[in-house]
Amino acid sequence: MSHETAFIFVHGAWHGAWCYKKVVNILATQDYLTIAHDLPGHGLSAKFPVSYFQRPLKEPGEFNTERSPVAAVTLDDYVEQVVNTVHQVTDQGKKVVLVGHSLGGIVLNAVGEKLGSPEIARLIYLTAFMPPNNSSITEILARESQADQKVVPLLKADPAQVGALRIDWNSLDPAYLTLVKEAFCGDINATDFQAIANFLTPDTPAQPFATLVQVSPQKWGSIPRTYIKCTEDWALRPTAQAEMIANADAFTPENPTQVISLTSSHSPFFSQPENLVNALISSINGS
Amino acid sequence: MSHETAFIFVHGAWHGAWCYKKVVNILATQDYLTIAHDLPGHGLSAKFPVSYFQRPLKEPGEFNTERSPVAAVTLDDYVEQVVNTVHQVTDQGKKVVLVGHSLGGIVLNAVGEKLGSPEIARLIYLTAFMPPNNSSITEILARESQADQKVVPLLKADPAQVGALRIDWNSLDPAYLTLVKEAFCGDINATDFQAIANFLTPDTPAQPFATLVQVSPQKWGSIPRTYIKCTEDWALRPTAQAEMIANADAFTPENPTQVISLTSSHSPFFSQPENLVNALISSINGS
Repeated sequence: MSHETAFIFVHGAWHGAWCYKKVVNILATQDYLTIAHDLPGHGLSAKFPVSYFQRPLKEPGEFNTERSPVAAVTLDDYVEQVVNTVHQVTDQGKKVVLVGHSLGGIVLNAVGEKLGSPEIARLIYLTAFMPPNNSSITEILARESQADQKVVPLLKADPAQVGALRIDWNSLDPAYLTLVKEAFCGDINATDFQAIANFLTPDTPAQPFATLVQVSPQKWGSIPRTYIKCTEDWALRPTAQAEMIANADAFTPENPTQVISLTSSHSPFFSQPENLVNALISSINGS
Repeated sequence: MSHETAFIFVHGAWHGAWCYKKVVNILATQDYLTIAHDLPGHGLSAKFPVSYFQRPLKEPGEFNTERSPVAAVTLDDYVEQVVNTVHQVTDQGKKVVLVGHSLGGIVLNAVGEKLGSPEIARLIYLTAFMPPNNSSITEILARESQADQKVVPLLKADPAQVGALRIDWNSLDPAYLTLVKEAFCGDINATDFQAIANFLTPDTPAQPFATLVQVSPQKWGSIPRTYIKCTEDWALRPTAQAEMIANADAFTPENPTQVISLTSSHSPFFSQPENLVNALISSINGS
């Protein structure tokens, strides 16, 4: 008999459901049901700028200016998909634990506020954006606690112009590729990173970064939540992670964040999937 | 409570576990436990020839001759991983249904012969290679029933020389890309195919194609089996699929193949995942 808890995984920018593959397989061997969808515009739903298929890339040129085919994707599109998935699972009589990585955290804020407790049994932020009420990922990125992050310098186009945050994962420039790996996967070897980079997609929609999301102590704040800190993360800095946790705890003093730390880059699902699964399971054992 | 049957999915050449993403998510909403690993040398374990990162590719040149970094991968490597996964699932007291796509069929032959019934409750060949006793995928590829297949003309290198079957999924040549799509995904639109092609990896190890696999009526032949025919498949032709089914039925006349047909290309997990899930579930309802 499987556990009464099912995990729904929400991936981050440029990623897809595939990033959770090792994690969901380990959970399956422990009889946990899991669902990990590609968000709209990501993974198998990704769309590519035409200029991405010109090699070498036209830079400076089209790759820096072409409007993104995913520019119209909104946070509401993400939220609608995840809410539908939650209902599919609760309709089976299971408890839903929502796990969000990186960008996926803003989806947890929005879905948590929409559905509240007990429909969501727990929110688990995996080195994820957890902005305060009426704020956005963009606001977090502008904070002093994120000042030395390594992602924004990688962007190949102005998000306001092209409607996406654009990274060239298959760059022919070794220096750029080194910076990409440092930002996301500092604890992954170069060979394994090639396979990861092959899956990453160049355009992640810009609108979800800028969207302001409301959370209230009564709805979002009533759901037990866990934050899995990654202490060697150069995409979302540990200082920014800690600041978001402190802000949330001040917002809901009667429901403090359960904090678990991993000595990991931004990508523990690749570098230490067993530790991550242990963190996930230990976090729900109290809920 | 989840079903007592768990599905273990084995992907085909150039693919990874990601190809089953839509299928496993639908099965999860119906409370079925699933596991889909990347085979060694595939997906997140893929390795790339250095020459793949030169664009435009050196052709004729290094891309046609460079030894593959996955040339050492054997069928035994695949089989060992799948046998371990089967044991992880049966240790939970669940029944295992093994699903193999394309190349994955030879893994089902080998694992089926090793473990037999009842450890394997059913083998499901999804437009997959199901060679007769002491035969190989290479032997099937040479048959008249496969004469008009569209995959071999895509190969960019001699498998005997480089140790892999090499395809350039990110080709800058539109004519070549059209042939790639026709061979594997004729029923997928061009935009969706770009996202699929982004995930496919260039080198699939050659050794598993040539390896002879024994099957006996007593072991492999005792396991109930299903063949899901794909009637518009230009990679593994319907004529070859039918021939393998007929050969198997002659080999085990008391355990004939249950046959289900989908009007599909080689890739129903992309083009019609709901129909495929219905086929999988209906196939086990008799077992």
